[in-house]
Amino acid sequence: MQTPQRIAIVGSGLVGTLLAIYLKKQGHTVHVYDRSADIRTVEFSGRSINLVMSDRGWKALADIGLDEEIRRIGIPVDKRAIHMKDGNLTYQNYGKEGEAIFSLSRGVLNRKMIDLAEAAGVEFFFEYRIWDVTLAEATLHIGETEKGPWSDLKYDKVFGADGAFSRIRHRMQRQSMFDYSQEFMKIGYKELHIPANPDGSHKIDKNSLHIWPRGNFMLMALANLDGTFTCTLFMPFEGENSFEQLNNETALVNFFAEYFPDTAAVIPDLVSDFFKNPTSYLAIMKCYPWTFEDKVALIGDSAHAIVPFYGHGMNAGFEDITVLNQLIEELGDDWKAIFRAYEKSRKPNADAIAELSRRNFVEMSTKTADANFLLQKKIEKWFSDKHPDKWMPLYSRVTFSLQPYSEALAIGDYQNAIMEEVMKLPNIEEIWNSPEVEEKIIALLQ
Amino acid sequence: MQTPQRIAIVGSGLVGTLLAIYLKKQGHTVHVYDRSADIRTVEFSGRSINLVMSDRGWKALADIGLDEEIRRIGIPVDKRAIHMKDGNLTYQNYGKEGEAIFSLSRGVLNRKMIDLAEAAGVEFFFEYRIWDVTLAEATLHIGETEKGPWSDLKYDKVFGADGAFSRIRHRMQRQSMFDYSQEFMKIGYKELHIPANPDGSHKIDKNSLHIWPRGNFMLMALANLDGTFTCTLFMPFEGENSFEQLNNETALVNFFAEYFPDTAAVIPDLVSDFFKNPTSYLAIMKCYPWTFEDKVALIGDSAHAIVPFYGHGMNAGFEDITVLNQLIEELGDDWKAIFRAYEKSRKPNADAIAELSRRNFVEMSTKTADANFLLQKKIEKWFSDKHPDKWMPLYSRVTFSLQPYSEALAIGDYQNAIMEEVMKLPNIEEIWNSPEVEEKIIALLQ
Repeated sequence: MQTPQRIAIVGSGLVGTLLAIYLKKQGHTVHVYDRSADIRTVEFSGRSINLVMSDRGWKALADIGLDEEIRRIGIPVDKRAIHMKDGNLTYQNYGKEGEAIFSLSRGVLNRKMIDLAEAAGVEFFFEYRIWDVTLAEATLHIGETEKGPWSDLKYDKVFGADGAFSRIRHRMQRQSMFDYSQEFMKIGYKELHIPANPDGSHKIDKNSLHIWPRGNFMLMALANLDGTFTCTLFMPFEGENSFEQLNNETALVNFFAEYFPDTAAVIPDLVSDFFKNPTSYLAIMKCYPWTFEDKVALIGDSAHAIVPFYGHGMNAGFEDITVLNQLIEELGDDWKAIFRAYEKSRKPNADAIAELSRRNFVEMSTKTADANFLLQKKIEKWFSDKHPDKWMPLYSRVTFSLQPYSEALAIGDYQNAIMEEVMKLPNIEEIWNSPEVEEKIIALLQ
Repeated sequence: MQTPQRIAIVGSGLVGTLLAIYLKKQGHTVHVYDRSADIRTVEFSGRSINLVMSDRGWKALADIGLDEEIRRIGIPVDKRAIHMKDGNLTYQNYGKEGEAIFSLSRGVLNRKMIDLAEAAGVEFFFEYRIWDVTLAEATLHIGETEKGPWSDLKYDKVFGADGAFSRIRHRMQRQSMFDYSQEFMKIGYKELHIPANPDGSHKIDKNSLHIWPRGNFMLMALANLDGTFTCTLFMPFEGENSFEQLNNETALVNFFAEYFPDTAAVIPDLVSDFFKNPTSYLAIMKCYPWTFEDKVALIGDSAHAIVPFYGHGMNAGFEDITVLNQLIEELGDDWKAIFRAYEKSRKPNADAIAELSRRNFVEMSTKTADANFLLQKKIEKWFSDKHPDKWMPLYSRVTFSLQPYSEALAIGDYQNAIMEEVMKLPNIEEIWNSPEVEEKIIALLQ
């Protein structure tokens, strides 16, 4: 059993809130701070991308008995729906029969999680601005303004669950031997909206992740419980087909008419949404170490902010909690050992999902519309169904398994090299499910 | 001719001071701020590695007529002196007859440069602590402490020449679309000291860069004008043969007796130097962009801190000034265009010298003691002497030419691939200067 600690968590997002529930159930005093107002009292910001929960996220929820409750506010999504420019619509299953990711509205989920944390006895302090932390003392510094007077909040442990622009990490960054990088994508995103039908039903298939793949830009849509869809337009900030060019109503309407003709019927407020909602940035943040002695630890986006193209930001953060919790159970009160083992275990996996997520933009925006790529996926699925012991597609490893991300990445690269050889076979379009191809893959696997 | 500007330079190091002279001579008002005391009034810190000036540095000095003055305080170094563990000493020339880099004490050079800048009319403000900058206003914020009251200093332009831990860059880092990375090496360094002989002469050859290459660690020494040498021990912080292990007098003395036996005669104060001088960190900092509108620009280490193993930190910073100056002459008062062209031109070259410098640790600490590597260098030199139009060794491209670093790196990699083929020739040790080898290289170059 653990010696109770006074623990501060900075950030009331999904990871901070779930971590709070875990730590509270272990008997600690848990205070969660957030510089923003309680998300339950405000409208959400118009800059979210819907979340998808997959096996890693479910595991972290199930271990603490919350999975059923959350499943009720999600919508299963078992396939991609690919909207081609000519209006053609095709579907690509994500996994095997019965395998699905779950679409969740960030705001809905976050509110629910805060309710659950409060019910568990976690205390929340909203609109508390944390400006700095004294790492060696696990002491937070709060105040109205950065330059104004601050007061100190002393804890035994501080967790920085304060996201990509973490203040806690910002202080750690100014230590020697702290590696850090931030990289902004040339692609930004804009939230758009498909309303529900008058009867509350969805206008397009709710069990699909809809993609309009157009090369260097794309539109996607994920369903919400209330019949609406959250749509996200990803495109470059500058250059051809960029946000820079869509700077007036005519340009915008013409652009959508040309590239996304089938959205005209379902996105009625395109113009007002587009010019009202901000154009948001995407960044990849990496750092190491993630902890300071036995006092401070980063978790979730503050330690590893990734791009959203694999739908794994939340899942990776929740898996941080699973690993941390296992180590706490294993190592008891030795928090120095817990923190060291935690960062060592998670860092290679965080780097791997960062890389997988970066690559997945090209898969979503370009390859989903490419016949060769679709054939390759079809062969992989066919072979995997015949030889489940020999082959699991990369997407399934990442999403429908708990295999460490770093292993999934390495094996995925190995499998891809094999598939490149297979795709070179003459007439592969004709013989894709022949014994010849099956033998070829088996031979290459040896 | 330029419209005079009020310009603040943050940092009175080598790059800040030379930039100040350039800008002053263009007719601007130039104020240089430094949080430290005037280096002319204090003893230097015991954590420096001697500088080497090479062609890029000389060019920046020569363009403004300062090269002769500086050459008088430097010592030409035309070769490496390799001290093997068995006491064997060999020499490797850096370039052709007459080509040399110049060893300079950082403190001596910096004091001289400040004198020259003051003589040119630059104003210096020492012990002024700059805590922050308002980028869009080119306004510096100074004060006694970070949290205490600040006052504002408004300029037309601000240059951040404030080194690897730049405050100016720190503010830029918190802008969207600013890419940044800091990476600390696992290797640190410690300054040691070889005193002069009683008659003021040098105890070992002053025209050599002395290296004691020992694999994952090494000692080096560069001469000073006063007969002394500044020595630098580079080794890992942790593990076998690390700073962590040399934690007492006996361990230190035994270690030096085993690995650097010939230094016993020339480093009399090993123990006191070692435990008095700090163990310093090495870091690589990268960022982009380097400028903010027409208001703020980073230059030197603040934009591109590199490891010291190619001896190019200062040279790269001085080359920033050369390029910036050319652009100012070309583009006149269009500072936005000047800044954009400056960062675009310099960024790939800064990345290239960062990579070359990183690689050079292995060259210095390991390859200089490797017979195959020495043979490869000998072949390159022989071929280059015969065909100067066809081959310039990488070291010469970087050090004895003004070829952009990025080109030098790319051509160096290309040449290295050729040399790998050449080194595979049977009996290459015997036939290294035969027509067969000459023809092979010429064939591979085509």
